[in-house]
Amino acid sequence: MTERAVKNGADGALLGGDRRALARAITLVESTKPADREKAESLLAAVLPHAGRAIRLGISGAPGAGKSTFIEAFGTYLTGQGHKVAVLAVDPSSRRSGGSILGDKTRMEKLARDPNAFIRPSPAGTTLGGVARRTREAMLLAEAAGFDVVIVETVGVGQSETAASEMVDLFVLLLAPGGGDDLQGIKRGVMELADLALVTKSDGDLKAAATRAAADYRNALRLMRPKYPGLPPEVMQISSVEGSGIAEAWAAMKGLHDKLIKHGHLKRLRQEQARRWFWSELQTVLSEQILGSERLGKEAKKLEAAVVAGTSLPYTAARALFRHILAA
Amino acid sequence: MTERAVKNGADGALLGGDRRALARAITLVESTKPADREKAESLLAAVLPHAGRAIRLGISGAPGAGKSTFIEAFGTYLTGQGHKVAVLAVDPSSRRSGGSILGDKTRMEKLARDPNAFIRPSPAGTTLGGVARRTREAMLLAEAAGFDVVIVETVGVGQSETAASEMVDLFVLLLAPGGGDDLQGIKRGVMELADLALVTKSDGDLKAAATRAAADYRNALRLMRPKYPGLPPEVMQISSVEGSGIAEAWAAMKGLHDKLIKHGHLKRLRQEQARRWFWSELQTVLSEQILGSERLGKEAKKLEAAVVAGTSLPYTAARALFRHILAA
Repeated sequence: MTERAVKNGADGALLGGDRRALARAITLVESTKPADREKAESLLAAVLPHAGRAIRLGISGAPGAGKSTFIEAFGTYLTGQGHKVAVLAVDPSSRRSGGSILGDKTRMEKLARDPNAFIRPSPAGTTLGGVARRTREAMLLAEAAGFDVVIVETVGVGQSETAASEMVDLFVLLLAPGGGDDLQGIKRGVMELADLALVTKSDGDLKAAATRAAADYRNALRLMRPKYPGLPPEVMQISSVEGSGIAEAWAAMKGLHDKLIKHGHLKRLRQEQARRWFWSELQTVLSEQILGSERLGKEAKKLEAAVVAGTSLPYTAARALFRHILAA
Repeated sequence: MTERAVKNGADGALLGGDRRALARAITLVESTKPADREKAESLLAAVLPHAGRAIRLGISGAPGAGKSTFIEAFGTYLTGQGHKVAVLAVDPSSRRSGGSILGDKTRMEKLARDPNAFIRPSPAGTTLGGVARRTREAMLLAEAAGFDVVIVETVGVGQSETAASEMVDLFVLLLAPGGGDDLQGIKRGVMELADLALVTKSDGDLKAAATRAAADYRNALRLMRPKYPGLPPEVMQISSVEGSGIAEAWAAMKGLHDKLIKHGHLKRLRQEQARRWFWSELQTVLSEQILGSERLGKEAKKLEAAVVAGTSLPYTAARALFRHILAA
């Protein structure tokens, strides 16, 4: 089969919503082989005009917050409402075993079997930038395949919440009602990313604690300037097990998304995200130049070490490294 | 006079603590002329071994929080305790009039006249990165000149709080007791930078409001994971006008700084800051290449526009721009 025919075939099936074609396309964009990268970019360029039509939701929850349980309940609710839901993830997992690849699917077993849902674990990768790029590209493919709600989930390793927030329209923070990870506190910088905070497990013995936690978060958020003037983030309580609060949470998300569209915020947001993605890719290309050459890599390490030791000015060292890159 | 003699003369006076020599040296590093830049880097390289010995404090306060009043009272307290205090600023001010150059000094008149203090307004500049670099370099010069407390203040335009936090050991957030900017709320991302929060104007009619505000902030900060395990940020009340809380605030800063040194946090922090400064200078050098060439600038704008419009993949566009840079 010629390359063009393969591509057209892949395009056609993908645009028709075929889940296996989507899975194969995502595998292609995750590949690090140069030949695959070329095919992937060709495919992405072809589907780009069909992307952008989903509601993009980031969902973050530390271990113990009930993220998988929520996404299963929420995703099932959405498909029941007639939506097509894709669940992607951004979590650099270079140290995790192969077991994690299946982990997500077994934790969301029911949703994984739903014909109107598509679940994909995080791409593997050593740098967050590389993982984030592949997740974003997977999102474009899922949108082209007709999925109208795309969830990008993260458990929150390193700066992955920030990476997830950079590619979605709304960022939803799941918070356990108390004890466990809450004793540690919310990771710095994450509360301010949230458009909506959901206190989970608001049922049975934990209901009172959940109500108190919701009040605490509401008070804290009230002290901070909202992302959008006049649209402060909401704090709601849910129980995935009882199914309560799920419909209300979706109504809140949809309501906010509609307001963002109406006031032009969404268009501006996505343009700004695209702009930042471009410039961060330029950094990635620069890093790849350095990491791809043993000589440059050594030079960079040497210069970095001198700056860290305080024996060299950062600007002088950076300029020296850049000259090496140009000369390479 | 030979260049070497000038440099040695400048070095000597600077290292001796001469405030005029320090002012001249800072003017030199702020200059954008290439010949001045060369001299500046030569001077900085010579004084680098003498830098690093101050307590570096970031102080941020929105208009109305009483920042200048506090810095004057605090700085005067410190010189009274035998310290030499430098007050620098990071606030990209390309749109502000020349009047702002004098503004800081008139707002801190008493401190400006103190022989053991040195006040310098923010360098002018259009990019935050450029302004931040010059402020950092001014800090190195001030330390070499024997100032043992360096304050980097910011009123908080754009990302200037983040820039300030990246060059200091401790970040202090000044908060007005209520009304005014508080109705807007604290800018997102700023609360989590704080090692210490000071509620100002805690006197007279505003004292009750200040006490309530302090309690609110304390509750909010309690929900967030602290920067350093076991060292949650403190919230204190001060009155610059009455002079109350100033000594306690300094004791809290000094106490935290000592703990950071004792547990190795300070060393790690400064090394990490130096490392990040190096890589961000590489980006700056890259941007300068692009902005310095009309052809590259046009190419960059064109590619950026295509990405924002959704007609080009960010990675493809970035790689194309990079090839142009290498070919230039």
